[in-house]
Amino acid sequence: MSPNSSIVTLTTDFGLDDPYIGTLKGVILSFNPSAVIVDIKHSIGPQNIAEAAFVIGNSYRFFPTNTVHVVIVDPTVGSARRLVILETQNGTFIAPDNGLLSHVLEDHGKLILIDNDSNVALPFGCKAYWVNKSEYWLPFVSSTFHGRDVIAPVAGYLSSGIASLNFGEAINGLHYNPSSKPILGKDCITGTIVYSDRFGNLISDIPASLLSSITYPSFQIGERHITGLYKYYSEGHALIGLISSFNTLEIAFVNGNASEVIGAKVGDKIVVYSDLKDINNDDSIKRIY
Amino acid sequence: MSPNSSIVTLTTDFGLDDPYIGTLKGVILSFNPSAVIVDIKHSIGPQNIAEAAFVIGNSYRFFPTNTVHVVIVDPTVGSARRLVILETQNGTFIAPDNGLLSHVLEDHGKLILIDNDSNVALPFGCKAYWVNKSEYWLPFVSSTFHGRDVIAPVAGYLSSGIASLNFGEAINGLHYNPSSKPILGKDCITGTIVYSDRFGNLISDIPASLLSSITYPSFQIGERHITGLYKYYSEGHALIGLISSFNTLEIAFVNGNASEVIGAKVGDKIVVYSDLKDINNDDSIKRIY
Amino acid sequence: MSPNSSIVTLTTDFGLDDPYIGTLKGVILSFNPSAVIVDIKHSIGPQNIAEAAFVIGNSYRFFPTNTVHVVIVDPTVGSARRLVILETQNGTFIAPDNGLLSHVLEDHGKLILIDNDSNVALPFGCKAYWVNKSEYWLPFVSSTFHGRDVIAPVAGYLSSGIASLNFGEAINGLHYNPSSKPILGKDCITGTIVYSDRFGNLISDIPASLLSSITYPSFQIGERHITGLYKYYSEGHALIGLISSFNTLEIAFVNGNASEVIGAKVGDKIVVYSDLKDINNDDSIKRIY
Repeated sequence: MSPNSSIVTLTTDFGLDDPYIGTLKGVILSFNPSAVIVDIKHSIGPQNIAEAAFVIGNSYRFFPTNTVHVVIVDPTVGSARRLVILETQNGTFIAPDNGLLSHVLEDHGKLILIDNDSNVALPFGCKAYWVNKSEYWLPFVSSTFHGRDVIAPVAGYLSSGIASLNFGEAINGLHYNPSSKPILGKDCITGTIVYSDRFGNLISDIPASLLSSITYPSFQIGERHITGLYKYYSEGHALIGLISSFNTLEIAFVNGNASEVIGAKVGDKIVVYSDLKDINNDDSIKRIY
Repeated sequence: MSPNSSIVTLTTDFGLDDPYIGTLKGVILSFNPSAVIVDIKHSIGPQNIAEAAFVIGNSYRFFPTNTVHVVIVDPTVGSARRLVILETQNGTFIAPDNGLLSHVLEDHGKLILIDNDSNVALPFGCKAYWVNKSEYWLPFVSSTFHGRDVIAPVAGYLSSGIASLNFGEAINGLHYNPSSKPILGKDCITGTIVYSDRFGNLISDIPASLLSSITYPSFQIGERHITGLYKYYSEGHALIGLISSFNTLEIAFVNGNASEVIGAKVGDKIVVYSDLKDINNDDSIKRIY
Repeated sequence: MSPNSSIVTLTTDFGLDDPYIGTLKGVILSFNPSAVIVDIKHSIGPQNIAEAAFVIGNSYRFFPTNTVHVVIVDPTVGSARRLVILETQNGTFIAPDNGLLSHVLEDHGKLILIDNDSNVALPFGCKAYWVNKSEYWLPFVSSTFHGRDVIAPVAGYLSSGIASLNFGEAINGLHYNPSSKPILGKDCITGTIVYSDRFGNLISDIPASLLSSITYPSFQIGERHITGLYKYYSEGHALIGLISSFNTLEIAFVNGNASEVIGAKVGDKIVVYSDLKDINNDDSIKRIY
């Protein structure tokens, strides 16, 4: 790789069954033949901005800091929504300004709303730009595929070392959708399943740090009780809790599929108790659901 | 990239669930370690030559002109069908000579049949070669996977700058299957759905240029009437028409799946009328179906 | 590519629908920005070690010999099972030591058990290492994703030319699961379906060499008789036998799906007879099933 070239990652809802990702890569490589392109996930649910925000928010830190991360879920393509570049110390992002970068923003400082339209000020050390200089886009811009015609050329240029300032004016804020966060109760923590993977592992939004002080944690999803927080899958059997590779509470079924066994899905609640005996004697559980 | 290296794209019906694509890439990289390989689409319907011809025909122009495009849908592997290289000003293609390059050929000039076997003369400025010099292939050629054993080594060599002439003799014509084209009637345009994507968007063969002169276009698929040609998804709701990223008429369902809602699929007819009122008064519509 | 860089292949059961492969690639590229990463297969059945062993065992020979092959199916992640590097003249492999490299080991010499725990001595010319020096891993190692946190950094270093010895101590043996092999009977060969691909082609473990001496071979799967061993798909029709691209007996349905037509799947038996007439007169066939 030349000193100026870098990695370009792609996180989209375009799927793998259409030529859209291929042509998008062709355009990136037309503008930077040295770009190294890595697919993060293309099977984001169609128009599911929250899922894409979670995925990129939990992936970018595993790439070199000069990586350009392309994130495209764009149900309002062509409307007033802007295409934006966000520069951080941990990577450069280009995406429609519709909340896709919410997790990334949260990682970089406390967020303060600056208007009634869900825009937040940029965290300290971050810069953002509105991608509005069309001289850097494909000569013919379609109405329905700005990923290929606008974002891809700019990502190609960015990855070759051209400064963000060239692609449009600096802006002060970005659209922000707060990510799911657990609620600390008197006797329990109530979290949410935020991701379910190929193995049926249920990933929650409850950070490992919250669990470290609980000696005998147990977990409830719907009507199902699960006891025991294990270190490795191989230590337990059937349904168990452990710390996911996202560093949050995960519910798994050893050598099986927890999502299918429990019938649970993204958005379902999960409650953590500190003592199994308390749960059995406590009919307040029902009131949670 | 070294000055002689280039991109190799892959469009096949091999799917993503078998090791075939991986080994094919291993062979390309064995012959050109600097090749940059880009997947365009591997989920072409098994043996669906027309789909692959459409996909590559609408993708190659987004890559640099020194790209080598590999296209493999090869139901008659090992029969009399030839493997061929087609050189154009816009890219070099290698494929079984079974019609896969029909769209590419159409893009490069008027096509003239040269025999009764569906072969056409090469458009001006194009050259073609029959890949028949086995010294450039893998030492052991299987009966069932010429993609890996013949095409991949040649694609590797081609992408490293070796001239096509080395791989076999120049030929004068290629097999051609005419692509789907709309029919202009007195009061309507009758086209065909030629692609349906992950979002359920229905892509037709009716070029945008044919629609530009119609002030109030409306569309009919099966029993379904659709009114309004919009610029962006976000401008309409439910079923709408717009110009696809293939620069043809597309029918979409805003934030939904038009293919499922209408029950339409590739091969179905779509009719464009110039005035909705005329349609409602005109019982000739039924005669079309 | 720099002289020291090489290809890294990936064969896993992580699927293509989660960000796991993307972050694993990010880590590899963080440790070797020049690595060329090739996906072989990520849709290995969850926890299916035998399938992964077959896939890598039939793929590695199509890559340059300085390639680093990463193989991850790791149901007992974090248990006593070791992560290991296997060096051969035909490639370097890194995988959990759970039998994933069995086919590769078989290719490199006669295997001799060295204990009662299914470990075999390394074939002549091979070396192996236990990956246990944590200074080469990510600073924070999760419990559930050693692929990203341990294997990926080591694969990055290996592909940049760092010697295996740096990552842990040399070891004398590896875990081995014998691969499926056909049984030669008096009048027949009894093999097993070991792979079924996207086209429904049924790949057996019966090598082409065993078939070459049979003048009129016929095949039986379940109740189904199939006659004729063809060279190309296009020579036959309906159900036929031919030599697969794995160089073994394959049963295919010309322009169709043999797996669906027969209702056969991986693990089913296939019997080869040398003369169809003998089969019809021989009621010993029933006794086989």
